[in-house]
Amino acid sequence: MAIDFNADLGEGYGAFSVGNDEELLSIISSCNIACGFHAGDYKTIPQTVKRAMEKGVQIGAHPSFYDLHGFGRRNIPHTPEDIYELMIYQLGALQAFVRLHGGRLNHVKPHGALYNVGCKDSSVAQAIAQAVKDFDQRLVLFGLANSELIRAGQQVGLVTAQEAFADRTYQNDGTLTPRIENNAVLHDTDSVVEQALRIAKEGKVTSVDGMDIELHADTLCFHGDTPEAVEHAKACKHAFEKEGIHIMTTFGM
Amino acid sequence: MAIDFNADLGEGYGAFSVGNDEELLSIISSCNIACGFHAGDYKTIPQTVKRAMEKGVQIGAHPSFYDLHGFGRRNIPHTPEDIYELMIYQLGALQAFVRLHGGRLNHVKPHGALYNVGCKDSSVAQAIAQAVKDFDQRLVLFGLANSELIRAGQQVGLVTAQEAFADRTYQNDGTLTPRIENNAVLHDTDSVVEQALRIAKEGKVTSVDGMDIELHADTLCFHGDTPEAVEHAKACKHAFEKEGIHIMTTFGM
Amino acid sequence: MAIDFNADLGEGYGAFSVGNDEELLSIISSCNIACGFHAGDYKTIPQTVKRAMEKGVQIGAHPSFYDLHGFGRRNIPHTPEDIYELMIYQLGALQAFVRLHGGRLNHVKPHGALYNVGCKDSSVAQAIAQAVKDFDQRLVLFGLANSELIRAGQQVGLVTAQEAFADRTYQNDGTLTPRIENNAVLHDTDSVVEQALRIAKEGKVTSVDGMDIELHADTLCFHGDTPEAVEHAKACKHAFEKEGIHIMTTFGM
Amino acid sequence: MAIDFNADLGEGYGAFSVGNDEELLSIISSCNIACGFHAGDYKTIPQTVKRAMEKGVQIGAHPSFYDLHGFGRRNIPHTPEDIYELMIYQLGALQAFVRLHGGRLNHVKPHGALYNVGCKDSSVAQAIAQAVKDFDQRLVLFGLANSELIRAGQQVGLVTAQEAFADRTYQNDGTLTPRIENNAVLHDTDSVVEQALRIAKEGKVTSVDGMDIELHADTLCFHGDTPEAVEHAKACKHAFEKEGIHIMTTFGM
Repeated sequence: MAIDFNADLGEGYGAFSVGNDEELLSIISSCNIACGFHAGDYKTIPQTVKRAMEKGVQIGAHPSFYDLHGFGRRNIPHTPEDIYELMIYQLGALQAFVRLHGGRLNHVKPHGALYNVGCKDSSVAQAIAQAVKDFDQRLVLFGLANSELIRAGQQVGLVTAQEAFADRTYQNDGTLTPRIENNAVLHDTDSVVEQALRIAKEGKVTSVDGMDIELHADTLCFHGDTPEAVEHAKACKHAFEKEGIHIMTTFGM
Repeated sequence: MAIDFNADLGEGYGAFSVGNDEELLSIISSCNIACGFHAGDYKTIPQTVKRAMEKGVQIGAHPSFYDLHGFGRRNIPHTPEDIYELMIYQLGALQAFVRLHGGRLNHVKPHGALYNVGCKDSSVAQAIAQAVKDFDQRLVLFGLANSELIRAGQQVGLVTAQEAFADRTYQNDGTLTPRIENNAVLHDTDSVVEQALRIAKEGKVTSVDGMDIELHADTLCFHGDTPEAVEHAKACKHAFEKEGIHIMTTFGM
Repeated sequence: MAIDFNADLGEGYGAFSVGNDEELLSIISSCNIACGFHAGDYKTIPQTVKRAMEKGVQIGAHPSFYDLHGFGRRNIPHTPEDIYELMIYQLGALQAFVRLHGGRLNHVKPHGALYNVGCKDSSVAQAIAQAVKDFDQRLVLFGLANSELIRAGQQVGLVTAQEAFADRTYQNDGTLTPRIENNAVLHDTDSVVEQALRIAKEGKVTSVDGMDIELHADTLCFHGDTPEAVEHAKACKHAFEKEGIHIMTTFGM
Repeated sequence: MAIDFNADLGEGYGAFSVGNDEELLSIISSCNIACGFHAGDYKTIPQTVKRAMEKGVQIGAHPSFYDLHGFGRRNIPHTPEDIYELMIYQLGALQAFVRLHGGRLNHVKPHGALYNVGCKDSSVAQAIAQAVKDFDQRLVLFGLANSELIRAGQQVGLVTAQEAFADRTYQNDGTLTPRIENNAVLHDTDSVVEQALRIAKEGKVTSVDGMDIELHADTLCFHGDTPEAVEHAKACKHAFEKEGIHIMTTFGM
């Protein structure tokens, strides 16, 4: 048995630093590197690329709306054409550094509002998937399990990786509880580990209303920007290893 | 006889538009496309790439310091490492669009303060040249005739194109008169044409002090952001054609 | 008879220039100065304030969402608290320059998406009105005639100025035709003058469906960022003067 | 005996957070609030103003170059006119919030490169001092002890507060060791306390070369953005109280 652990890295900007990239890189198997639109810049990207390569962590792009002040979390109206183009710009910028350092871009995971909208809105999902395909058809598209983004990726013929969240709660319909809700995030390590294990072993998660939901996941996300991320990821890794579940990328490559 | 005409294009940003790209594209043989750091964004870039390809104009990158408010014209202190990395980021972003549209990136011409510093400071010139080389060694590096930038390009084995300015005046030492000086820019079309022709035919220019200076030029620049640019370029093109000098790219490709 | 003419000015940013401020200042009686969030900066503001004072044009603030790339035209989700605070920031910055030059801030007209949302959404309207009131209760609040913004301004006790647009078409319900529609903007000068005169003299406008709508206006807006703005404003001024209608501010002060 | 402790606060931006404002506010007597140019925004400012007022901490403006990516630390060329105007913009924005909450702006301390240049370059110092004076002549101007900034402030008739740094080392000529030097910052708490006490009690500091330098200080700065800031400030406060030195603002008000 094996599952991928992913985290968003390189989300600083200039003098602003975010997250605990160094520690996360020792735990995860895939990272999503901010490309300069919600965070990240021409200094954080090569630094993060190099570190990921040293640790043997797969490198993905983490493109977003062009929204530094909102950290890419605000749902700013965009046409599908705009989304296609903002994807290309960011993929190109990141890819340049990956190639320069002799690495290989493995996957793409949209960030924040772009991810959320892409998971729900099929025209946005198609724009994202088409951009990834046109840029490099070998790239794996990450998306919320069972989302429009996964469907759009499959439709254009991309390999997709269904993502689940160890530390986010789920609604009965399998969507994430919005962050504005109090119970959106699991802070307790035991609950996070329990949810992660159940997703990996049974393909199921318990919704906020206590319902059992089917949830197939290829990759589990640990948010690099929460203070508990490292602790959660470590505890999950430890628990997974005890159960004989390998933390590794099983797609793309 | 032949010489290249180049202009900086795609220098708008969001709702802000700059220059007269459409008209210039009908005159020039090479364009330098803003990459998003001093101007340009994920919408202007693909638009400009497509237009340039339709007109058969060679496409170059026009990277700059990350300085939207100063339009890349301010000399902001940077380490050579920073310059190397800001080059890579911008080259990657632009290249992605060029490839997507089936085109080919032909050259690189740094913008504004990055150009000026790179032409004078050898460590900056080396960082620029090395970044271009490492990104794609077939790219042509544009630089002020006889500058450090040209020397650095030659040293790393790049093809270089020596640039002269039809509408800028020259000092006795062959450098451009700084823009803060009153006589830095030629506004009169006849003077521009005369200077352009003399550079192309004789490889010489008259300095502000009336001295004759040797000035070999592979390419003549017409500033896309000045109101007279189109008029100057048209008049030069007309005069050159009368003299049997072809306006075309004679390097790279 | 008298009516105010207003235009948005100082909407450049760094090297990017927008509009024809100098010419508009000779025609209008009120200007709305960009405060740095969608356009404008610490250099355009004092320059525009000084010019407006020289021309005897009333000075207003033109605050917006913090959205340079979208020129403040994108409907970015904001809480009413955020809107209150972004108003205060921009009013403070502009006011500082107005006071410094011995002038007086006369009014506030939100820009772009902030204006549009404020005219329709009462909680946003209340946040805008409360911010203006708390900042300086003598300020006049500009808003679309019959909008939530006007109602909110009246409710907190502000003097309000109902605004109509000489060059925008109206729906049957008195709202503006959205800009994405083809017939949203009147480009023909005669139509603009006719609509302006009818609003001023009869308090009526013809909708896109040919219906007569009641439309009381204290001020007519001429968009500083359209190429025809100056021509339209001049033609209207000429027509108004022939009819004996004075172009002047009749509120606030 | 009494001395002021100051720290730079409100230096986050959007989702990026910096420093430990809450803890510092319990220790210091004056704070310098980022105004949105190198850090800070319309949300951090009112939040920081309110907290400072609750804790009885004097409020100052911390204006800087318009340089978010460089956190205001890069020496970007500016004319004195530009500096005058960027000061006014930021003072106005901050002042609006201070007034709204019934507070009073007490002082101005330029940030980063603006501070450094202002302390050395008399034309920049004069522009800063004149802007503060023209904005509100009751404001206290903070500057490095014995600097051009202090001189310029005194010349225009402002009250000034000479600043020393508990955690920065000094050159023989009384200037700070540049941050690029290894020994620029004291990290050891005992050394910080010792230096702080000596400055407060004897008006002297030991230079990096072991020389005794005269150093009169009205206020001691604790950098809000260093991890040790809180610890250093606490230790100094404890040591000062044991020596009967009150931590309080002794100027302005």
